Amino acid sequence: MNPAIRTTDAQAEIRAVIDGWAEATRNQELDAIMAFHAPEVRTFDCHSVYQFKGAESYRAFYEACLACMQGKMTFEIEDLEVVAGGDVAVAHFIAGCGATGLDGSRHEGRLRSTLCFERTGGEWLITHSHCSAPFNPMTEKTMFGDDPEAPAEAGAA
Amino acid sequence: MNPAIRTTDAQAEIRAVIDGWAEATRNQELDAIMAFHAPEVRTFDCHSVYQFKGAESYRAFYEACLACMQGKMTFEIEDLEVVAGGDVAVAHFIAGCGATGLDGSRHEGRLRSTLCFERTGGEWLITHSHCSAPFNPMTEKTMFGDDPEAPAEAGAA
Repeated sequence: MNPAIRTTDAQAEIRAVIDGWAEATRNQELDAIMAFHAPEVRTFDCHSVYQFKGAESYRAFYEACLACMQGKMTFEIEDLEVVAGGDVAVAHFIAGCGATGLDGSRHEGRLRSTLCFERTGGEWLITHSHCSAPFNPMTEKTMFGDDPEAPAEAGAA
Repeated sequence: MNPAIRTTDAQAEIRAVIDGWAEATRNQELDAIMAFHAPEVRTFDCHSVYQFKGAESYRAFYEACLACMQGKMTFEIEDLEVVAGGDVAVAHFIAGCGATGLDGSRHEGRLRSTLCFERTGGEWLITHSHCSAPFNPMTEKTMFGDDPEAPAEAGAA
């Protein structure tokens, strides 16, 4: 561990940016969410598409997602770690999410998220994000929380 | 985009480290693979565990995985992007993987991978990794390649 990159002013800046992004996510404000992303952002999201390249394609995807939900989301960041060096920073955490579908059905889950930031002109923007759910290898079913039927793994934390 | 962090010597160093790690992965050499990781590495892997904290727990998981395979893996890195700033670097890519099970069955797939590195004492080590597969939201089934039954998404790249 390199302590110098875990105790910088940049870390505090990144945590503040993440707070703002999480609040925009809860409020489902698409313009506000996109304002945290660089134009060239590359996204690996937890859906049926391998990747999105560029903010425009990610926005189109996000807009389609939001159209399937109503009201605010719940979005809680747990176990956040941040490192920053020069103009590059990385954050990773578990996200506790919840949303209500158009039919009133409630969807809750836990996801893993990695956000990578670059600072340009003093501003930290997301240039890469990776959000995923684990899966049960026996059934290949996606897990949105602990699956009591999934095999116990060596080394689980 | 901040061009300065995309054209550094550190980027070339990271690409060389990734080449070595990928080769160790192909050869399924556990000691060599673990030598690329920092003791405090936090891993979000594409399996039924949300996260591993520390190299020891990740090693136990990896060992259990390797015991289910025989021979070498195929492991090809596609579409690699690297940025580095100070002592922090990030790499993201698509991984084309293949392995043979103990029963001779062949498993192939494409995964998304993000690797985060920190440099300590001149050495770049992986301090966070995130590897995942997307899923079909209609069936919640994990996708190891394009799924012709998955809904078309806005903005797919």
